[in-house]
Amino acid sequence: MEDLVEILSRLYSFKKDTPTIWQEALVKHKVKEEEWEGVKFFRLDKPVHSLERGTILSDDGIIRGYPRIRRILNLSNGIKRNLSGTFYVEEKVDGYNVRVARLEGRVVALSRGGYVCPFTTDRLPDLIDYEPFFDENPELVLCCEVAGPESPYNTESPPYIKEDVKLFVFDIMRKGGQVLSPKERYRLAEKYSLPVVKSYGSFTPEDTEKVLEIAGEMDREGLEGMVLKPEQGGRYLKYTVPSSHINDIRATAILVKDIPCGFYLKRILMLGFALKELKVEDSTRRAHLLGEVFTSAIKEAQEIVLSGKEITERFTVRFRKKENMERFFSLFRKAPVDVKILSEELKDGYIRVTFDRIYRRSTAFTRSSLGGATFVD
Amino acid sequence: MEDLVEILSRLYSFKKDTPTIWQEALVKHKVKEEEWEGVKFFRLDKPVHSLERGTILSDDGIIRGYPRIRRILNLSNGIKRNLSGTFYVEEKVDGYNVRVARLEGRVVALSRGGYVCPFTTDRLPDLIDYEPFFDENPELVLCCEVAGPESPYNTESPPYIKEDVKLFVFDIMRKGGQVLSPKERYRLAEKYSLPVVKSYGSFTPEDTEKVLEIAGEMDREGLEGMVLKPEQGGRYLKYTVPSSHINDIRATAILVKDIPCGFYLKRILMLGFALKELKVEDSTRRAHLLGEVFTSAIKEAQEIVLSGKEITERFTVRFRKKENMERFFSLFRKAPVDVKILSEELKDGYIRVTFDRIYRRSTAFTRSSLGGATFVD
Repeated sequence: MEDLVEILSRLYSFKKDTPTIWQEALVKHKVKEEEWEGVKFFRLDKPVHSLERGTILSDDGIIRGYPRIRRILNLSNGIKRNLSGTFYVEEKVDGYNVRVARLEGRVVALSRGGYVCPFTTDRLPDLIDYEPFFDENPELVLCCEVAGPESPYNTESPPYIKEDVKLFVFDIMRKGGQVLSPKERYRLAEKYSLPVVKSYGSFTPEDTEKVLEIAGEMDREGLEGMVLKPEQGGRYLKYTVPSSHINDIRATAILVKDIPCGFYLKRILMLGFALKELKVEDSTRRAHLLGEVFTSAIKEAQEIVLSGKEITERFTVRFRKKENMERFFSLFRKAPVDVKILSEELKDGYIRVTFDRIYRRSTAFTRSSLGGATFVD
Repeated sequence: MEDLVEILSRLYSFKKDTPTIWQEALVKHKVKEEEWEGVKFFRLDKPVHSLERGTILSDDGIIRGYPRIRRILNLSNGIKRNLSGTFYVEEKVDGYNVRVARLEGRVVALSRGGYVCPFTTDRLPDLIDYEPFFDENPELVLCCEVAGPESPYNTESPPYIKEDVKLFVFDIMRKGGQVLSPKERYRLAEKYSLPVVKSYGSFTPEDTEKVLEIAGEMDREGLEGMVLKPEQGGRYLKYTVPSSHINDIRATAILVKDIPCGFYLKRILMLGFALKELKVEDSTRRAHLLGEVFTSAIKEAQEIVLSGKEITERFTVRFRKKENMERFFSLFRKAPVDVKILSEELKDGYIRVTFDRIYRRSTAFTRSSLGGATFVD
């Protein structure tokens, strides 16, 4: 333990009381030792002092966690209250967040929690031509959203991605955590031909009506929403649109006992707020859909259980290397996530694997409720 | 403290380790000293050993708390799995639960938590002719539901109660906790002309189809649901119908931040189960209604806040005695429930008081969200 404190203190110093902070973090199991292809590093499983959960420490230095973006429920007042100068509007892609960075010579994709994501890291060469960028900017981190119908984590996918997954850079960060300005990012993205999230351009609070129109457009197109990014730095804001709230509920209502109830209530509330503010044309139809996605999912869950099956989500994913596929499933097992591999085949140079994620709590609840079990309120 | 342990041990002995159990309960503040019109008694604010929360101890002895009734989500399998012989089907009235009992000479209405309810106790002479019953059966407790448009606790009311409140006896219990059989209760209710919940008669598990029909009927009539009571004693079961789930959400969705999210999710689930099992004819319309009650309430909450008001529930209630009205509001303040009295007038020998129950959390959330506040997910 003393050794570890010393190593951690060398890797990252909080200046004041550094050894005490690391000592405490180790005692509380906030720091985990990890290894990826021989590279050893530390992962913060929980925030430590001012360092975010998901921060990585290695002999190479630090890779800070990606900060949480705060959400607004009213777009126009959210803009007026929180933004003053120019800001950029960018698409919030509905996928999963990874930081792509060079870690002791290897380029890896780090999950929000600071794990090396075996799937994304395996597929990186297909998704982005990163070498020229990191050769010249080894101290930078690409903050990306990965999305598509063959995502191993999401059953929802942006409508414009028709197969496999795509990667979209939405931020560039120094390893120490400082986020580059949108302008600087646009410049680098262009220079290195990086795939990026769609930008809707720059606006000021006077253009709020235009931003509302973009939100309405996103809603009609079935996108998730937007992130507003001040040109001069400062707090980002996220805003999601009605179609995405209903899609989120539709995608998860069958798993109702494996999802915290706050997830649903928050989406119902956001939907109610957005329907009013965006003056969505078919708002009555949306209200009806909200009810329908719940009741259909509960009906479907019962039918699944009645047919003797379990409540699952099905994924089909392609890997380049078998060892990464194995690492991917071993991380799931560690989570623990209940997974059943259904098929595995070689096609076009990829290993195509189909698996079910099994939801035992939702299955057990539906089965016992249907069977006449009693519950205490 | 030693004295209290002694008094409590005398009032109720658990046989083994009695003083230790009371000592511990006192240390953990599970026992509260109360007083009503000079009568002193103890109230269990939490369960103590085998005694329910809401149990009352006085020199008169014990009045046990009313046990929780377990819920089933599937009516037919619930019956088949949990009941064997004859059982009675009775209406589950949508109101609040009180135990009416004689406590050291005075007849009082006790809330679930074991408080003397100043409102119900004040109004008891209007609701039930209890003296002949208690004169002959001082050791019995009437377990009742009080409901109606002038209930001080519920904004929902059974459709057949057009004004004020009514009381319905649904169980008779010995003070020590033993619940009388339905037959014995029916006999006593008839003998003393007690107002009772509607009974749909007796059934066996072979009659499950008939019970499903009753549930469908209750749903069409806008009732809450049913309680199934085995003739030979044993565990009761409760089952609620689709209309009541939607009504519950409609009545509370405006208070969304003052209600635990599990409340809503449970009702959505029960609705989904009941719609499927009862083969409700207009089940699509019900699904739509589910969505509508949520989005309309969220819209309404925003309009209330935009007009500068607070989110409230309004009640109009009548009291016989001013002192009981004062006790009632002082209990609310103690709860603490935020209440504002709007008017008070004498009419037909009653004090008619109109008050608002104010929901500060929901108001604050709606106001700040509308104003553009940011939230961490």
